[in-house]
Amino acid sequence: MSRLLTTTPRGDGFHMPGEFEPQSQVWMLWPQRSSTWRDGAKPAQRAWVETATAISRFVPVAVGADHEQFENARAMLPSEIRVVELSSNDAWMRDCGPIFVRNEDGEVRLVDFDFNAWGGLYDGCYFPWDKDDRVPRKVAEIERVDRYRAPMVLEGGAITVDGQGTLITTEECLLSPGRNPQLDREQTEQHLGDYLGVEKVIWLPRGIDPEGTNGHVDGVCFYVEPGVVALSWTDDTTHPLHEICKEARDVLESETDARGRRFDVRLLPVMAEDIVVTEEEAAGIDVFEGGWRLLAGSMGPGTYANVLICNGGVIVPIYDDPNDEAAVAAIRALFPDREVVTVPGHEIALGGGSVHCITQQQPSGTKTSAHAE
Amino acid sequence: MSRLLTTTPRGDGFHMPGEFEPQSQVWMLWPQRSSTWRDGAKPAQRAWVETATAISRFVPVAVGADHEQFENARAMLPSEIRVVELSSNDAWMRDCGPIFVRNEDGEVRLVDFDFNAWGGLYDGCYFPWDKDDRVPRKVAEIERVDRYRAPMVLEGGAITVDGQGTLITTEECLLSPGRNPQLDREQTEQHLGDYLGVEKVIWLPRGIDPEGTNGHVDGVCFYVEPGVVALSWTDDTTHPLHEICKEARDVLESETDARGRRFDVRLLPVMAEDIVVTEEEAAGIDVFEGGWRLLAGSMGPGTYANVLICNGGVIVPIYDDPNDEAAVAAIRALFPDREVVTVPGHEIALGGGSVHCITQQQPSGTKTSAHAE
Repeated sequence: MSRLLTTTPRGDGFHMPGEFEPQSQVWMLWPQRSSTWRDGAKPAQRAWVETATAISRFVPVAVGADHEQFENARAMLPSEIRVVELSSNDAWMRDCGPIFVRNEDGEVRLVDFDFNAWGGLYDGCYFPWDKDDRVPRKVAEIERVDRYRAPMVLEGGAITVDGQGTLITTEECLLSPGRNPQLDREQTEQHLGDYLGVEKVIWLPRGIDPEGTNGHVDGVCFYVEPGVVALSWTDDTTHPLHEICKEARDVLESETDARGRRFDVRLLPVMAEDIVVTEEEAAGIDVFEGGWRLLAGSMGPGTYANVLICNGGVIVPIYDDPNDEAAVAAIRALFPDREVVTVPGHEIALGGGSVHCITQQQPSGTKTSAHAE
Repeated sequence: MSRLLTTTPRGDGFHMPGEFEPQSQVWMLWPQRSSTWRDGAKPAQRAWVETATAISRFVPVAVGADHEQFENARAMLPSEIRVVELSSNDAWMRDCGPIFVRNEDGEVRLVDFDFNAWGGLYDGCYFPWDKDDRVPRKVAEIERVDRYRAPMVLEGGAITVDGQGTLITTEECLLSPGRNPQLDREQTEQHLGDYLGVEKVIWLPRGIDPEGTNGHVDGVCFYVEPGVVALSWTDDTTHPLHEICKEARDVLESETDARGRRFDVRLLPVMAEDIVVTEEEAAGIDVFEGGWRLLAGSMGPGTYANVLICNGGVIVPIYDDPNDEAAVAAIRALFPDREVVTVPGHEIALGGGSVHCITQQQPSGTKTSAHAE
């Protein structure tokens, strides 16, 4: 019921819409991995419930859970949220999930990129990642959406697009040796063009979380609308993110997008203080050989840029940090026509991400698969 | 996205349509249980592919497979068949799956009866049956269909309905001590009325497969259309099914349906010979403590009455038996406006059922859940 297409989205007239465009559904995965989420993932599950509930005020939410957690997820989540059986190795729908594309007629399809847990056997966060890698094809079958299989590793958190031909990513991530060592920069741009329907790639040098995601862009900046990019920023030259943000700003302020526009860069505060992991929090994590491990102490700063734009809403993580208020105010100013809703970001940050990392939007469309009734 | 309703289908104006009414989809579950299906279920999987492919000529088919078999099912089944992640303890969608109901406006909902593996701890076929029992709620979420939870054990193979108020079942099954010992015959009728929207229950004394299903009706007879019932029949008084068929015929010929019509009973041949299990076939089954076990030797006769009616088609199992031709001719005569397609029944019979047992139809509707977009 989902055709596997051997053409390319670009060739077929499809492209990835901007996150700010109308959505029909937002996908999430239920957290249950005990080596990522402390205390049997119960605190994380409560954070997911709060986040999913906030999103569902603006767009229908579907949450995938494996058989063991299906009933618990169904019971914890409000009934208006859809819960489907969908197993995964962890809960990062942005990165292992499908990336949807749409054509001018409004037909929606999805692109199934390879996923290798942020670096595979080179420097990935866990092994195996087989269930994660099957998520897009399972979503395609549930939604009766036709599927492209892209011949490269890519996570949704590594890119942000304007839906008008421009994609912003980082060299640190896309050119990292654990992703696509067989592709050089030009070949990478070619694949991004073919499979996401973009015409110009803006390369920022670095993103955040070098050890986990190898520098995802979705902690640094995001498209507010075509031509307008929100960028994490601090004037404090001693802040650990200052240099990364400065490099990104320099690129954005010197570049033009696919339509020849200069970037309107809007600045967002970074966190003032580091996220601190307590001994008790670290002690709640199961040992997992060779995997990423949460340790007590400072994790470095989280980010306010990891928001989800969802129809009339914007979901923003906050951290009980001195800069929370200024960050939320800055995001409210970016979106005068959308309602900004905050959710606690600490628990999601303990696993290494935030709101954008755990969600993936499905754009609105007039029809899905050619096979649908 | 699927509401759990605490009212009843009857109270809300919903009833189970006849199988001969228009369908939007047929559901199946991928066979993989190695203690039911020989040789790692590979021969059964090929039989499922043949059956699903035959059905999909007439109506879209969705097959549920768990994570371990998802990729294999997807690869073995044709691409026009939908494969969704849906775990179960075995593959009997008719019995553990949802029973769909519809109202006059065409809204479709489903009823989630308790499932206890045909008799629970009293005389069920296996333990546990937890995944089977969750199938209806998972289908409800996938399809965004609202759900009723019926407070009784019932398998879809235990009933056949005319969609006009009449349900035919067997005393042997519905009043068996492993199902609903808390309900007497009147209370059982009350529940069937409340949850399937029927007004009159016709009780046949016995069905087939007393040790497995405790006498399901779907091996003995089925509704062809309102007022017309196809009944397995043999004039050979020494045939093991003769007495069961005779008892059923006596009831049907002495009863009237919910609308006061006499039954037009059309006779189908039974198999002339028993299904014989070879030593090699029996040796391919994994040992499973306390479960039903396939043994070499005679299994008794299978049945031609375990057909699936699916829009313009009727899918009929055949067994390389001397009566195959007469049975198919009789079914063709019953359905002059539908195409009768045969599929090999032996492999499915080794697990204890046939085409009807492994399928469940979803009726066409104008809308599903009140929550759907």
